[in-house]
Order: sequence, then structure tokens, then C-alpha cells
Amino acid sequence: MSYRLYYWTGIQGRGEFVRLCVEDAGAVYTDVARVEGDDVMDAFIAGEHAGALPFAPPFLASGRLVIAQVANILHYLGPRHALVPESESARLYAHQLELTIADLVAEVHDVHHPVASGLYYEDQRNEATKRAKDFREERTPKFLGYFEKAVERGGGKHPLRAHSYVDLSLLQVMAGLHYAFPKAMAKQTLPLLRDLARRVADRPNVAAYLASERRLPFNTNGIFRHYPELDE
Amino acid sequence: MSYRLYYWTGIQGRGEFVRLCVEDAGAVYTDVARVEGDDVMDAFIAGEHAGALPFAPPFLASGRLVIAQVANILHYLGPRHALVPESESARLYAHQLELTIADLVAEVHDVHHPVASGLYYEDQRNEATKRAKDFREERTPKFLGYFEKAVERGGGKHPLRAHSYVDLSLLQVMAGLHYAFPKAMAKQTLPLLRDLARRVADRPNVAAYLASERRLPFNTNGIFRHYPELDE
Repeated sequence: MSYRLYYWTGIQGRGEFVRLCVEDAGAVYTDVARVEGDDVMDAFIAGEHAGALPFAPPFLASGRLVIAQVANILHYLGPRHALVPESESARLYAHQLELTIADLVAEVHDVHHPVASGLYYEDQRNEATKRAKDFREERTPKFLGYFEKAVERGGGKHPLRAHSYVDLSLLQVMAGLHYAFPKAMAKQTLPLLRDLARRVADRPNVAAYLASERRLPFNTNGIFRHYPELDE
Repeated sequence: MSYRLYYWTGIQGRGEFVRLCVEDAGAVYTDVARVEGDDVMDAFIAGEHAGALPFAPPFLASGRLVIAQVANILHYLGPRHALVPESESARLYAHQLELTIADLVAEVHDVHHPVASGLYYEDQRNEATKRAKDFREERTPKFLGYFEKAVERGGGKHPLRAHSYVDLSLLQVMAGLHYAFPKAMAKQTLPLLRDLARRVADRPNVAAYLASERRLPFNTNGIFRHYPELDE
């Protein structure tokens, strides 16, 4: 099975959660826009392809299927690459955790875009300063404390007692938050999540990916952005 | 099968998307907090129950399963009550649409809470005024235009060519947006979505529910809130 992933060039963004999954799985995939340009996605968004209508990138083409929404894509890929346990209860729980990661990612975005996603950060910096304070002091501890507890509940190594796509996404969350909010993150006590992130980053396929040119650096066009003034 | 739904008392909120599903299905369920009080949810959030750890309400108990995140709950309920087509492609698409509805709902919340979900609306009214303008002028047409196109693509009656839980959620979105932003919604041309909402509201179980005391009125504690100053 070969996949075609559609996501904006130039940023990790939400596409990165899918990339980490297919890279760890050793799956064959094409990061289509990086080959053909961002315009290749227009026809999908305009409804000119068969199958599901995506609202926005990322979306994944797998045979005749078109699948959008990160958590939905991972819910599809997980069973196909042994990246989620087999039981119904575990798959529902994995998906629930991934959806909570998606909620966190949306809040990370809104830290630098609290007023309008279509305006520049510089045009909403005052509001962003206020939202960043709440994010650092209330939301980050709440979300990360939840995931820390989930890892503990899973036995201390993984929320699902075995490696899964959720672990890959938690690596990305930890890496992104450390890039965006280094000072705020230094204050968080998260031994299990930090250990998980290290172990996931050391998986051979993940390590090879992170060292490759396919892994773009974090930057201030993506979702996780480092603006020093938002990091207290 | 009898379900136990856990959600805050006093508001429709995110729990309403689950209620509409179980009501339309004619399923037996208990809206637990309305019987036992909101405190009944604390032990789940604290991790004192077996099964999945919820981040926040709503969550559904079904036998030994605990399932959180609205779209995940509907993805579980849909096949059990013939509220989603049988094919994998249709189920992925239904879930993708539901996740996009969840994204819209999160943005609706942030219109009145653009700075901090833990502060009162009155403490972030200036920022809310700005965000509301963007929501009315950019986000509402973008999201609803997408769902209108999805219904058209499904043949004009349903995005999935047959009644599904997505239709029930679209009814709630349309009702909520009309309550919160009556002036802005009056300007939207959405013939297929409006027709869908009317048809769904007329389904016997839905109509009976909407006329019952179980259906709380919209209010300014929920997600869809009517503040006239935010409706231009």
C-alpha cells in the first residue's frame, strides 16, 4: 500500500502527526505538495475529486479513499500498521487520546491567533499575550498533566500499554511545546512524558526521519511558534 | 443496551450532540448528572474508574466501556443504531464531517472566550467583539459553505446519501448558530442545510425530544450563546 499525503509545504503543521505515523510504520508514501506544489490540493478542496470532501489539509489518499482530519487519518492507519492495539476498547481510547491532542493543538494555534486565523500574528499580539499567559499557566499543565496521568495509568511507558500512534503524537506535542515555550516547559514536571518522548525519538525509523531533510525545522509559520514574548 | 451519559447539568453544550443521537435512535439512556448531580463525574476525571480516562465531559458508559470526545462517541454509536452507512469509506467520511463540526463548535466557544476559558465572558468582551466579527464574516460562511457543499455532493438531502448522526449534529449546529447569531445567520444562503435541519427536526423521535423537558433551552452558559453585541 502506497499513500499520498497532502499538506502545506514549508511547515510541519498538522501534517507532521501523519508523517510521524507513516515514517515509524516504514510505509511508502509521497508528500505530494512537496513534489507538485501546494496548488495540487485545490482540486480536492473544490470537490473535483471523487470520495470524501476535505475541509482543509492534511488529507491522505489511500487507494480510492480520501481521508481528512488528523485523528481520523491515524485511526485509519493505526490498525493497518500495528500502531494501535487490537481490542475495540483500546482503539476507542487511542482515538479519544488523539482527539484530545487535536484539541490541544488547536489551542496552541489560537495562542498566536486568538482573534482571527486569517490575520497576521503581529495584528493580534496584544490579545495573544493574554491568551499565552492562560495557555502557559492553565491549559498546558491541564493537558500535559492529563497525558502524564494517562501514561501512568497505562503502566508508565505508554498510555495504551504498548507503542501506538498516540506515542508518536505525544512526541510531536512535547517537541513542539519545548520549541514554542522553552521557559514555560522547563517548569513542568512530567517525568513519564519526557521519558516517553525520548524513547519514541530513539525508535530507528523515527530517529532516521528526524535526522533527514524530510523533517522540516519548527518555524514561525507553523502551529508551534516560538515568539519569546509569549513565553513569559 | 442501556447507556449512561455524563455531561454537565444546565446546558446543552457538547452533550447535546450525543443526546440527539441516542434520542433519534430510541436508545435507553440515563443522563446521569441530571439525576445524581455534576459531582458524579469527578471520580471518572480523577481516574478512579476502570477504562478510558476522560479529559472532560461528555463521556458515555456502555457496558464496561467508557468513551469520551463527542465525535468518538458518535463513531461508536452510529453503527450500533444504523445511524451511519455500513461501508468503511462512508464511516470514515461521516467521522471526518463530525470532526469538522467539532472544530466549528470549538470556534463557537472561542467567540465568547477568546482569551481564557476560565474567565468570564465579561472579562474578555473587547477581544470577543473582534473574534466575533471574524467568526461571522469569515468562519461561519467557510464552515457552513463547506457543509452545504457536502450535502449537495451527497445528492441534496444528506451528506452521506442517507440519514446519519451527522445530520443530527448539523441540526444542532444550525439551531445553535441561529440562536447565537440570528442577524448574521439571516444573511447566509444555505438552502440545503436549512432544508436538512427542518427534515431532521421533524423526525418523530427528534420532534418528541425537542418538545420534551429533556431538551434544555439554549442559554448564555452553554457553547452557543446569544450576546447581541457579538451579532453585529
